[in-house]
Amino acid sequence: MKRTVAVQMDAEDPLARLRDRFHVPDDDDLIYLDGNSLGRLPLTTADRLQEVVSREWGERLIRSWNEHWFDLPGRVGDLIGSHLLGAAPGQVVVADSTTVNFYKVAVAALDAATPRRTMVTDVGNFPTDRYVLEGIAAAHKATVRFVAFDEIEGATPAAVAAVIDDDTAFVALSHVDYSSGALADMAAINAVAAGAGTRVVWDLSHSAGAVPVELDAAGTDLAVGCTYKYLNGGPGAPAFLYVRRGLQERINCPIWGWFGQRDQFAMGQGYDPAPGIGHFLSGTPNVLGAVAVEEGVRLLAEAGVERLRAKSIALTELAVGLSDALLADLGFRVVSPRDPSRRGSHVSLAHPDAYRICRALIETQNVVPDFRAPDRLRLGFAPITTRFVDVWDAFDRLRRLVEEASYRDLELPPQPVT
Amino acid sequence: MKRTVAVQMDAEDPLARLRDRFHVPDDDDLIYLDGNSLGRLPLTTADRLQEVVSREWGERLIRSWNEHWFDLPGRVGDLIGSHLLGAAPGQVVVADSTTVNFYKVAVAALDAATPRRTMVTDVGNFPTDRYVLEGIAAAHKATVRFVAFDEIEGATPAAVAAVIDDDTAFVALSHVDYSSGALADMAAINAVAAGAGTRVVWDLSHSAGAVPVELDAAGTDLAVGCTYKYLNGGPGAPAFLYVRRGLQERINCPIWGWFGQRDQFAMGQGYDPAPGIGHFLSGTPNVLGAVAVEEGVRLLAEAGVERLRAKSIALTELAVGLSDALLADLGFRVVSPRDPSRRGSHVSLAHPDAYRICRALIETQNVVPDFRAPDRLRLGFAPITTRFVDVWDAFDRLRRLVEEASYRDLELPPQPVT
Repeated sequence: MKRTVAVQMDAEDPLARLRDRFHVPDDDDLIYLDGNSLGRLPLTTADRLQEVVSREWGERLIRSWNEHWFDLPGRVGDLIGSHLLGAAPGQVVVADSTTVNFYKVAVAALDAATPRRTMVTDVGNFPTDRYVLEGIAAAHKATVRFVAFDEIEGATPAAVAAVIDDDTAFVALSHVDYSSGALADMAAINAVAAGAGTRVVWDLSHSAGAVPVELDAAGTDLAVGCTYKYLNGGPGAPAFLYVRRGLQERINCPIWGWFGQRDQFAMGQGYDPAPGIGHFLSGTPNVLGAVAVEEGVRLLAEAGVERLRAKSIALTELAVGLSDALLADLGFRVVSPRDPSRRGSHVSLAHPDAYRICRALIETQNVVPDFRAPDRLRLGFAPITTRFVDVWDAFDRLRRLVEEASYRDLELPPQPVT
Repeated sequence: MKRTVAVQMDAEDPLARLRDRFHVPDDDDLIYLDGNSLGRLPLTTADRLQEVVSREWGERLIRSWNEHWFDLPGRVGDLIGSHLLGAAPGQVVVADSTTVNFYKVAVAALDAATPRRTMVTDVGNFPTDRYVLEGIAAAHKATVRFVAFDEIEGATPAAVAAVIDDDTAFVALSHVDYSSGALADMAAINAVAAGAGTRVVWDLSHSAGAVPVELDAAGTDLAVGCTYKYLNGGPGAPAFLYVRRGLQERINCPIWGWFGQRDQFAMGQGYDPAPGIGHFLSGTPNVLGAVAVEEGVRLLAEAGVERLRAKSIALTELAVGLSDALLADLGFRVVSPRDPSRRGSHVSLAHPDAYRICRALIETQNVVPDFRAPDRLRLGFAPITTRFVDVWDAFDRLRRLVEEASYRDLELPPQPVT
C-alpha cells in the first residue's frame, strides 16, 4: 500500500480536525502510538487547569469546594458514564486510582458472594488487578484462581463458562486485554456468569474511550477503569468506578471515609454510608485530576464513541495489513485478534528482540510504541489523535530499523510505563 | 491592644516576605483563616504545573515517566520527611488520599498486632479516621473502642495509658486535634503505648508544616497526613504515609498494586512487594498533585519549621489574647489549650451561633474561618501566609459583626469543607 492511500484516508476522516484540539507541536515528527498508556494533552486542559489553579484555588480558596468542586466525582463520573460507558446517571464516580477502585469493588464483590470464596481471573490479566486480588485473598481467607485463556482470543464466553464453579465469588476480567488487545463480549460473559450464580468485575482501562461500552445494557454489575489512557486525563488522573444502581445499596465499599458519609459535615458519630454510588467515595478527591478528565472526556463526547470505534477499526486494520505486508518476513507475528470486532484499539506484535526494537524506535526513529514483557511490541492507536499516515510512517520506519539491524547495538535503559 | 502593635509585629516578622511568594491578590482585603483546610497557592506552583502539563505531559508524553515522574512519591516524601517530619529518607511516600493511606497503615497495624483485635481512638478524632476504623472493624472481626479525652487537653500520655488494655492492637490519634487544636506529646505517648505492648498510628494532618514533628526521634511507627492544608499542595493533593524503617519489612500494605511491586515492568506472576517503604504504594500516583506538593513544601523548607512554629505560637497567642479581650463578653469561649506548647496552629471558639457567625464572617466581612460542628468557630493561622494584622483585623471584624447581631438574619447555605 502506498503512503498516498493513508494520506487520502486522513483527508476523508471525519475526526481528523479533532487532532487540532490537542497539544501537538508543529515541528515534531513524533509518531505517538502510546495513547493507550498516556493520552495526549487537550488544549483546553492547560487553560482549564490554569483557571482552576489561579482563580478557584488561588483566589476563592476553600470557598471553591462549594462553588466548584464538591460534585466533581459524580459530575465527571456521569459525563463518562453517559458518553462512553452506556451508564445512566448516578452509577459512576471519579476518584482514587484504578488500583484502589479495583480493590474497593473486588472486596465488595467477594463480601457479597459469601460463602463463595474463589476469585477467578486471567493469568494474563493486567498485573495490578492480579496483585490486588492476591492481596485480598491473603487478608480475607479467600483464593485467587488464575486461569489461562487463549493467548490471542482471550476470555470468550465459552472459556469463561468453563472456569466458573460453585465456589466462584466473581470473575475479574479486562474488557480489552492490555497485551493482545482482545475485546471480550461483555454482555455474553455477564450472562454466562449470572447463569452460574456469580458475576464479573470488569476493568475497562483499555476499552473506555475507544470501544463502545454499554454497561447498563450488558447487565454489568461492577467496573473500574483508567482515565489517563484514551480519556486523556493526564498522568495519574483519578480513575472511575461503576456500580449498577440495583446493587448500590446491597454491597459495601471497604474503605469508609468522610466523602462517603451521608452527612459529611455533621461530623457525628458512626459511619452512615451515603445513598447510591456516593459511599464508594472515601477521602478527598483529586481536584486537578478530575478537572482534567472532564476536559478530555468532552472531546471524546464531541467525537462520538461510534465514530471513534469506526476510526479505531480502520487504524488497526491498516496496522495489521501493514504488519503482514512489511514485517512478517522480519520475524514479527501479529498476536492480536484478526477479526476487528474482537479487537480493541491496539495491536501487539511478537518479536524476540521486541524490547530492544521498542527502545530503538523511541530513540532513533521518533516513534513511541510500548513494550510489554516478555516479547511484545504494542502499538496503540488512540483514534482521536492518531492519523492514518502515522500508522503508515510508523511501519515504514519500523521496517527500515529492523532491516538495518542497528537496534542490536543499543544500550538498554529502564523500561517505560503504561 | 492597638492595631499598630500588630503592624509592628509584622514589620519584625522574619517570615513576612514569604507571603509574597503566594498568590494573594492586591485588591482583596480577604482575611483567610482557613489555611489549615486548604492552604494558599504558591506562585511557583502555577508555573510548575504549567510546565508539567505543557512540556512533560504535552510534549514528552509517556517518556516523562522515566524522565520526571517515577520517583515523585519517594522524592516528595523524602522532602516532607527531612524538612517537616524528622524522618530519615526512605520512610515517607506521597500518594493516594489521607483516608486511603490511613486505611493502609491501620489494616497493616491491626494485622501485625494479631491476636489483639481492638483499635482504640478518640471519639472526637477526625471523622474520616473514625469511619475508616469502623469499616476495618466490620471487615476484620475486630472492634473499635471510642474513648473520650478532655475536650480541650485531648490525648495526654496519662489519658492514653488509661485506655490501653491487653487487647489493644493500636491507638489511633491525631497529633493536633482538628477541633480543639490540642497538640499531643508524641514521644511520651509512643512510649506509653510501647510500654503496654502496643503502638500508635498518628494522623499529622493538622500538625505537619506548622508544628515540629520528629517521627524518628519520637519512636513513631506509623503516620499519615494531609498535604493540602499547611503544606499548600492544593485541593485533593496526595497525602503522605510514613512507616518506620525497622517496621517496613514486617508489615503488609493491604492494597497490593503494580507501583508496590518489586519489578514493576516484568509484569510477571505473583505479587512480590518492593523493599522498604515502596510496597505501600498501590496504583499510579497523582502526578500533578505530587508536583504541587513539592512546590509547597519547598517554601516551608525555606521558612524552616522552627521559625514557622515560633510565628505560629505568636499568632495563636495573639488570637487567644484578642479573644479574651474582645469576645468573652459576647458569649465566646476559647476551647483550645491556653498553654502554647500544648496547641497547634489553630484556635477554636465555642459559641451557640457559631455556624451562622461563620457564614456571616465569610459573606459580609470577607473573613474566612471554618465552622466545626456543633458550635465551633475555628480560626486557622498558617504561619507562612498569615500576618499579625490579619489576626487583629479578623477579631475586630468579628466583634463588630456580633455586636451588630445582623448575622442572625442570615440565610444558611451548605456547610464548607476542610
